[in-house]
Amino acid sequence: MTKLVECVPNFSEGRNVKIIENIVDEVRKIEGVKLLDYSSDKDHNRSVVTFLGEPDKVESAAFNLIRKAAELIDMRKHKGAHPRMGATDVVPFIPIKDVSTEECVEISRKLGEKVGTELAIPVYLYEDAASCPERRNLADIRKGQYEGFFEKIKKPEWKPDFGPQKMNVKSGATVIGTRLPLVAYNVNLGTDDVGIANAIARKVRYIGGGLRYVKAVGVKVTERNIVQVSMNLVNYEKTPVYSAQEMVKMEAKRYGVPVIGSEVIGLVPMKALIDCAKYYLQIENFDMSQVLESRLYE
Amino acid sequence: MTKLVECVPNFSEGRNVKIIENIVDEVRKIEGVKLLDYSSDKDHNRSVVTFLGEPDKVESAAFNLIRKAAELIDMRKHKGAHPRMGATDVVPFIPIKDVSTEECVEISRKLGEKVGTELAIPVYLYEDAASCPERRNLADIRKGQYEGFFEKIKKPEWKPDFGPQKMNVKSGATVIGTRLPLVAYNVNLGTDDVGIANAIARKVRYIGGGLRYVKAVGVKVTERNIVQVSMNLVNYEKTPVYSAQEMVKMEAKRYGVPVIGSEVIGLVPMKALIDCAKYYLQIENFDMSQVLESRLYE
Repeated sequence: MTKLVECVPNFSEGRNVKIIENIVDEVRKIEGVKLLDYSSDKDHNRSVVTFLGEPDKVESAAFNLIRKAAELIDMRKHKGAHPRMGATDVVPFIPIKDVSTEECVEISRKLGEKVGTELAIPVYLYEDAASCPERRNLADIRKGQYEGFFEKIKKPEWKPDFGPQKMNVKSGATVIGTRLPLVAYNVNLGTDDVGIANAIARKVRYIGGGLRYVKAVGVKVTERNIVQVSMNLVNYEKTPVYSAQEMVKMEAKRYGVPVIGSEVIGLVPMKALIDCAKYYLQIENFDMSQVLESRLYE
Repeated sequence: MTKLVECVPNFSEGRNVKIIENIVDEVRKIEGVKLLDYSSDKDHNRSVVTFLGEPDKVESAAFNLIRKAAELIDMRKHKGAHPRMGATDVVPFIPIKDVSTEECVEISRKLGEKVGTELAIPVYLYEDAASCPERRNLADIRKGQYEGFFEKIKKPEWKPDFGPQKMNVKSGATVIGTRLPLVAYNVNLGTDDVGIANAIARKVRYIGGGLRYVKAVGVKVTERNIVQVSMNLVNYEKTPVYSAQEMVKMEAKRYGVPVIGSEVIGLVPMKALIDCAKYYLQIENFDMSQVLESRLYE
């Protein structure tokens, strides 16, 4: 059985193609690691890389990427619309196949220690790898950003998990951790009233009393003259796609508004969709190893 | 993009473990071919092997398996409950990923020619590879079995597609061809009346006026005191799993019988289940390359 971990580092360069390519090359160089995607945003001046592979190889690729970003990016000159605190800003590890969250936390810790020691970059662990509840949320850690961190890092409660308790002037600080794969899922409604989409989003999402692992907002889709409930499902094992779908349908009924379609944005783990097939078809005792393709990378 | 073909040869030995292992070893020996499963039936005196890989490698593995079966099996001594006409009885190729039916037909023809020429075994092409409508159906070709084929093969209409028009006394004749993956799918009903399961099966299956690519029978599940509609879905692209499911539900309603569950037997292509998730979730514009795992073997 091949263990598979996904890694989605965000680094603080979204404009200089040569620098971006040089950094992404660090992932391409590691055999057995598959570069799935990378994209840059000029306004944010930030890039996101997605790659997949066996745990130790993914960890190596992540370290090499962080080292290269520290070499080529100078945070003193960085400007961009997106909050950031380091040359490599955040590095989530995501368990994909035959890997537990605990193993990904272990990888996060090992990488964090190496980055702290060898590159002298302060490292904070977040989400499932967090060392205390106050550090679970990325936004809480990153508050103050690069510029504010020179002071923030001195506070005892913001002592880094690894590396010096002192900002790396050129590279800033880096957040590393573990989270589940996120499913970006939108449900289209047969109305142009964004108020209805928003009202449904408020009922479906966690903060409004809805499903534990759903974030949701109402959005206008102007080119189609409809609206949608745009969701992030942050734990599709515990809050499956079908329960989000059915809850949107249920709430839409009170407005007499039909669900006219849905969309999955970007990548989705096979199991997130197969769990839906299992639910609707009422399949008993199904094992993921019955999926023909799952045999290809055992 | 890696092309993937599945091959499921049936050979006429189900008792002698040493012979079975020697034959299956021919598949194990080919690098890049993945042995998914093999099983033997003593009463049938027959084994079924399932393997997967790139087209040319799968073709090589199939040829080597046929050659080894011709060496180790003597049809003059073969007895078993299952109809058969050759040492390697039937060899279906199944398109799995980025391969067309036409390409699998081409593989069937190439392999058939090689088996006919190099091993002097008469070869018949069947299903999508058939050279005429009368040879589509395996049962029609195989009628008369090994013993009857010494006469049958002399008839002009049963001239083999490849190889000599003369039985290979030791190895018999072999059927090679192309078909789609079969999904074995059973729907459980909340009753112990097998008459109801049979009545529903008759409405759902093709020969009863039902769905084009569904074969179905009613079956008793004694240990649970229920019945089920047991189906083979022979083309899940054209007759999807969800339509079989919904049609069983619809027919069950007239008896006031609930669908209490379902089961997938053995292997199932990922797309057969994801198509169901897409249907029930009403997903628009989904591309299979959005499935994370599909990126692993592009």
